[in-house]
Amino acid sequence: MTADAPDPHEGATLTVDLDAIVGNWRRLQDRLASGCRAAAVVKADGYGLGALPVAAALAGAGCQRFFVATADEGVALRGGLSAAEIIVLNGVDAGTAPLLHGHRLTPMLNSLEQATAWRDYATGLDSALPAALHIDTGMARLGLAPGEAITLTDRVDFRRRVTLTLVISHLACADQPDHPLNRQQLLLFAPLAAAFAGVESSLAASMGIFLGPEFHFHCVRPGAALYGINPTPGRENPMAAVARLQLRVLQVREIDAGFTVGYGATFRAAGKARLATVGAGYADGLLRSLGNRGHGTVGDKLVPLVGSVSMDLAVFDVSGVASSDIQPGAMIDLIGPRQSVDQLAHDAGTIGYEIFSRLGPRLARRYLSSAA
Amino acid sequence: MTADAPDPHEGATLTVDLDAIVGNWRRLQDRLASGCRAAAVVKADGYGLGALPVAAALAGAGCQRFFVATADEGVALRGGLSAAEIIVLNGVDAGTAPLLHGHRLTPMLNSLEQATAWRDYATGLDSALPAALHIDTGMARLGLAPGEAITLTDRVDFRRRVTLTLVISHLACADQPDHPLNRQQLLLFAPLAAAFAGVESSLAASMGIFLGPEFHFHCVRPGAALYGINPTPGRENPMAAVARLQLRVLQVREIDAGFTVGYGATFRAAGKARLATVGAGYADGLLRSLGNRGHGTVGDKLVPLVGSVSMDLAVFDVSGVASSDIQPGAMIDLIGPRQSVDQLAHDAGTIGYEIFSRLGPRLARRYLSSAA
Repeated sequence: MTADAPDPHEGATLTVDLDAIVGNWRRLQDRLASGCRAAAVVKADGYGLGALPVAAALAGAGCQRFFVATADEGVALRGGLSAAEIIVLNGVDAGTAPLLHGHRLTPMLNSLEQATAWRDYATGLDSALPAALHIDTGMARLGLAPGEAITLTDRVDFRRRVTLTLVISHLACADQPDHPLNRQQLLLFAPLAAAFAGVESSLAASMGIFLGPEFHFHCVRPGAALYGINPTPGRENPMAAVARLQLRVLQVREIDAGFTVGYGATFRAAGKARLATVGAGYADGLLRSLGNRGHGTVGDKLVPLVGSVSMDLAVFDVSGVASSDIQPGAMIDLIGPRQSVDQLAHDAGTIGYEIFSRLGPRLARRYLSSAA
Repeated sequence: MTADAPDPHEGATLTVDLDAIVGNWRRLQDRLASGCRAAAVVKADGYGLGALPVAAALAGAGCQRFFVATADEGVALRGGLSAAEIIVLNGVDAGTAPLLHGHRLTPMLNSLEQATAWRDYATGLDSALPAALHIDTGMARLGLAPGEAITLTDRVDFRRRVTLTLVISHLACADQPDHPLNRQQLLLFAPLAAAFAGVESSLAASMGIFLGPEFHFHCVRPGAALYGINPTPGRENPMAAVARLQLRVLQVREIDAGFTVGYGATFRAAGKARLATVGAGYADGLLRSLGNRGHGTVGDKLVPLVGSVSMDLAVFDVSGVASSDIQPGAMIDLIGPRQSVDQLAHDAGTIGYEIFSRLGPRLARRYLSSAA
């Protein structure tokens, strides 16, 4: 990823490489059997990286189906995507049905109550409306029980008013390829998918794609993998990195041995040390759990995050970096060529998904794209 | 706090009681010696609760000085507050000086470089500009060393171009009243404050206020305490709660003993259980570390969060609640009358500051105010 230097006015900058996201989508599409299409999950503002620019880039590359979590996200995305199918994962109720319909959004029907609400709304319009159907096969989170789904779709009142475009289920343990639940869910879902003749079916998200072609069905739903999060934990990441998070140095200081740093004085310098304070903290997405555990990078050098992360500030020990390389105004990479989001998440005790989706609104956001 | 029911269209709602925030500010002001004023810290969008409505309410109650972290936050706040003093904690550089000046923002000068940048900018205008000065007495995060501060302000070129309105330092361990660093910082700061004759001085933020009147000087800088976070950890909270976070139930299901819930199947039901899935997850501020550790409340009942928190969803075990009280559309309190933000933060392994400042953009936000 090449980039101009961030605007010196910004305290921290997130740079998102849209070409890399498109490349990841194509790489996934290339793995699929013919007849299977890759959709794109852009909920939570595109996992924090920007739903509108990401979706526009992917639509330009041929992606025709997008998933968001909420009706409001769907409305916002429809503003940028006039033609694509947009499926709202959290579904519908009597209150949101007009909003969904008004913006040509497709609800995921996650329960009998949601199915009834959408059928009733369609009946009121004397129309038939599209929907996707979610069958739970082992997450116990959302979705109809398999028996409920079969019974529902046998009912004439439902079939007359609701046109299913997709039947899905969701894997609970796709990050663990050997977990027995993967095959149990597959064995439960496959006959259900077959029962919905003429309706597309989908089981796999990012990690599920890598469990093998029998998990692919007609459609896969990558999110994390598009954004460069490793969909094969513990193995080499087959995806390209797409994001760089750079933190601006506000101040550099030297402290003597025995001096402490930050709230609670949780870091004590063992010897003379040079510290760099950056203008970003946990309100910006530097999880507080990174305190005394995470690292940034300067060039090829790792620089430890010392002391507690503050709301708007964090401190790195840059003693190992030449002082000419780390003056006020310089940038420390938190996510970048030398440190993946997965590594940062590991140090924070979480997963890359949480790191990305919690990036804060104060970050300057820049997009790189050859499509311009 | 009384409130109408949240809009049924929303998946999760944050309700902020502006009267309670004003009440907390007055309660703090009443603790101070005459001649000492309480400012208000509204950085990070008012600790996630909304800088503009919070600051407008406090300005209406007489608060005249506000602190933000960044120049951009200052610009946004100036749009809502034409008269108040707004101090930008992260300071100034050559790039941001015109922005600060253009919006009548006062930089905190945290280093010699920042002091020089502001002096040079004022010199270019052939003017004198206001600033605050930050002296580090033990945080090693931002601020001039005491000797640097004295030398700087003795220099005629600086005094001619920069009019100091405030001299501050920041306590590292105010959450631990017996920590020796508190008194060390006080002993270091007091003579410095005295040396700046005619300039107001400030040492205490929320917790520092409760260390005693000798920590108050001319101005105190509460943030957390305004928002109801306990400024006296381990003792009864002297502040009123100001926020309620309600999560909407999308679906209720029953599972049998032995069934698992959510990603990684990390929760296994010991017996038959009734589960409620809500439409909010870690992208909304339900820290992932709450998985299998946190609770919500329904009426007086605690309901455990079971399984992993997902990006947009979380699951609660509501077996102990009457099924008539917990149907789709009902709300589960995550922060509210029965569970403080401090308790939630404790369960998540963090502090209330991080919970509030990471509340996500999808939450519907409502403000209660008698000022209307």
